[in-house]
Amino acid sequence: MMFSYALQAADGAARAGVLTTAHGEVGTPTFMAVGTAGTVKAMTADAVRATGAKIVLGNTYHLMLRPTAERVAKLGGLHKMMDWPGPILTDSGGFQVMSLAKLRKMEEAGVTFRSHLDGTAYFLSPERSTEIQHLLDATITMVLDECTPHPATYDEAALSMALTHRWAGRSRAAFVAREGYGQFGIVQGSTYEDLRRESAAALGAMGFEGYAIGGLAVGEGQAMMYAMLEVTTPCLPVEKPRYLMGVGTPDDLLGSVARGVDMFDCVMPTRAGRTARAYTSHGVFNMRNARFIDDAGPLDERCACLACSRHTRAYLHHLFRCEEMLGPMLLTAHNLTYYQSLMLGAREAILAGAYEAYCAGVRAGWEDG
Amino acid sequence: MMFSYALQAADGAARAGVLTTAHGEVGTPTFMAVGTAGTVKAMTADAVRATGAKIVLGNTYHLMLRPTAERVAKLGGLHKMMDWPGPILTDSGGFQVMSLAKLRKMEEAGVTFRSHLDGTAYFLSPERSTEIQHLLDATITMVLDECTPHPATYDEAALSMALTHRWAGRSRAAFVAREGYGQFGIVQGSTYEDLRRESAAALGAMGFEGYAIGGLAVGEGQAMMYAMLEVTTPCLPVEKPRYLMGVGTPDDLLGSVARGVDMFDCVMPTRAGRTARAYTSHGVFNMRNARFIDDAGPLDERCACLACSRHTRAYLHHLFRCEEMLGPMLLTAHNLTYYQSLMLGAREAILAGAYEAYCAGVRAGWEDG
Repeated sequence: MMFSYALQAADGAARAGVLTTAHGEVGTPTFMAVGTAGTVKAMTADAVRATGAKIVLGNTYHLMLRPTAERVAKLGGLHKMMDWPGPILTDSGGFQVMSLAKLRKMEEAGVTFRSHLDGTAYFLSPERSTEIQHLLDATITMVLDECTPHPATYDEAALSMALTHRWAGRSRAAFVAREGYGQFGIVQGSTYEDLRRESAAALGAMGFEGYAIGGLAVGEGQAMMYAMLEVTTPCLPVEKPRYLMGVGTPDDLLGSVARGVDMFDCVMPTRAGRTARAYTSHGVFNMRNARFIDDAGPLDERCACLACSRHTRAYLHHLFRCEEMLGPMLLTAHNLTYYQSLMLGAREAILAGAYEAYCAGVRAGWEDG
Repeated sequence: MMFSYALQAADGAARAGVLTTAHGEVGTPTFMAVGTAGTVKAMTADAVRATGAKIVLGNTYHLMLRPTAERVAKLGGLHKMMDWPGPILTDSGGFQVMSLAKLRKMEEAGVTFRSHLDGTAYFLSPERSTEIQHLLDATITMVLDECTPHPATYDEAALSMALTHRWAGRSRAAFVAREGYGQFGIVQGSTYEDLRRESAAALGAMGFEGYAIGGLAVGEGQAMMYAMLEVTTPCLPVEKPRYLMGVGTPDDLLGSVARGVDMFDCVMPTRAGRTARAYTSHGVFNMRNARFIDDAGPLDERCACLACSRHTRAYLHHLFRCEEMLGPMLLTAHNLTYYQSLMLGAREAILAGAYEAYCAGVRAGWEDG
C-alpha cells in the first residue's frame, strides 16, 4: 500500500480528499487528536475512536524522554503501545524543545537541551528526530524544523527558514521509506509573504509526501495567519496533503479549510475538556457556570457523544464542581467529537460544493448561544 | 416485581443467590462499586458495566451536599443522572457525617453537622435520610445508624446499638415501600458477641428486605471481624441478603463470603486504581515500581479488562509515571474487573460446592507473586 493523497473535490480553495496509509485511510479535512505521551489525555483508545477520529498525533519530545523511543520500539511501536492501530503522525520534537526544555543550545548540527523533568541532557538533530519517529513507528514523520519565534525581523525569519530547509534536507535523507509511511516537510517564513512562497517552493522541490505549515498560531492573529495561508497553499503541490500545525479554534479550522488546509492538530479540545470549556454547535460554554446547575438538557442536542446522549448539562456541571475525573473524561470526549463532526461536516459540504453555506450555518449556530 | 432474594446454594456458610429488584437482578455474592458523588471515580457508566458490575453504591452525604437530593430528583433520579439503570444502593449518610463533616452534634432526634465543603449547617435524621434516599431513587435504602467507633466499651457499644435500633425503627416507618425497592437494617454491637446477636435479632424482627453488618473494618482487625461475622450471620434471616459494609481487600471478601456474607462495598479497588495499586491474580502490585518499565506482559493474563487485554505493564507504568489520567482510568477498570471476577468465581464455586478449593486456589495465586 502506497502512502497517497487523492483529491476528491475542491470548493473554492477548500479541498476534500482521502489520505491512504499503511494504517488506514483518513478522509480530509481532518482533525488529529493530540496524544502527547502515548495517550490522548483522559481518553481510552476506544473513546478516541468513538469520537470519529481517524488519525492521532504523538509528541516526539515527550516520548523520547518517557518512556524513550527505544522502549516504545521494544513494545512494538506506538500503535501497539497505545492501542491505536490507525495512522499516527508524530511531530519532530523541535517545537516542544523550544517551549518546554531548559538550557537549549541551537547549532547547525541540531539542538542540545536539558529535559524539563530531570535536567538530563539530550541532543536532537534532524537525523536523530527522524530515527526516533522511525522507532515510534510513526505513520507520518515530520522533519525537524525551527519554529521561527514571533515576531521576527525579515532577516531573522530568512535565516531561520534557511536552517529549516537545510534540516528538511537532512531529515529527508535520514528518512527510511516504508510502504504506506510518509514524511512531511514544514513551511516556515514567519509573516513574510515572499519567504512563505520561497519556503513552500523549496520544500515542494524535495518531494515530501505532504506539507505542513508551521510558525503560525504563535501570536500573529487570525487575520495574519489567514494571509499567510493564502500565499502559501497555492505554492504547495496540489496532489499532496497540507497540514496546519497547532491550529486551532473551530473558527480557525473553518477559515483555514477555506484557504486550502487539509489537516489540523491542536490541544484545544482536549485541554478545554479538562478545564470545563465545551465547544458546541451553540458556541463555547464554561460548564462550571452556575447557570447549568439545574439544566436538564443535553450539552449539545446535535451531538451523539456519550456526554450529550446520556447525560445532562446539570450532571456535567456537577462533575466539574465536585472535581470528578468523569467531568474531563466526558467533556474531552465531547469536544473531540465536536471537532470531528465539524470536519466531517466540512468534508461533506465541500463534496457537495456547499462549503460557504456550511460555514455560514455553523457560525450562525455559534451566535445563537 | 417484588424485591426478593432467592438462595440458590450454600457451601458451608457461604451462599449463592439472586437478588431481584425493580432495576434488575444481581447474582450474589456481589461487590458494589462505590459511586460516591454520582460517578464511580475515573469510570464512565459503560466502563463500570464492562467490569461486570451489576449494582453500584451512592453516598447520601455527598449527594445531599452536591447536587442535593432535590436536584437529583428533578433530573429523574440517580439512575438516570449517572446513566446507571441497574440497581443502586445508597448509604444513609451517617458514616460520612461522622468521618467528614464538621461540628457534629448527635442527639436522639438526629445529627446536626456542618458541610466539610463550605460549613453550611444540615440536619440528618432517620426520616430525612430515608427521604433523601427516596429522592435519589435508591433501589436499596439504608437505615440511618450510628457506626459505633472502635474501640468502644461494652456500655458505650450497648448504648450506641440501642440508638441504632431506635433509628432503624424510625427509618422503617419513614420508608415509602415501592415495588422492587427495599430497605436494609444495619447490625451494630461493636466487638461484643452478645450485642451482635441481640442486634441481629432486633433488626430481624423489623422485617427489612436485607441486613447490613456495620461497625466492622474500623480497626478491629480481620480476626475480630471474622469472629463477629461468625456470631452475626447465623442470627440473621436466612432468606434475606447480608451486606458487609465498607469491606474490603480481596482476602477479606473471600473470608467474609465463607462466613455468610452476600454483598460488599469498598473504595479500595477504585482508590487503589487511582494510586497505581493493582489487584491481580498474582497479588498486589504498585505500577509505579520501576520493575515494570520494560515489562511487555499483560498486567494480569487471566483478566479480560481493557488494561489487560490491550496494554502492557510497561504502558501502565508509563502512564502513572507521566501522571496521565488514563493510568487511573485503566487501573480502576482493572481493579473493579478483578473484584467482580473474584465474586463471580466465588459464586460459581459455591454453586458447584467447591468454595474452599476456590479460595485455596486464589490465595495460592497471590502467593506466586
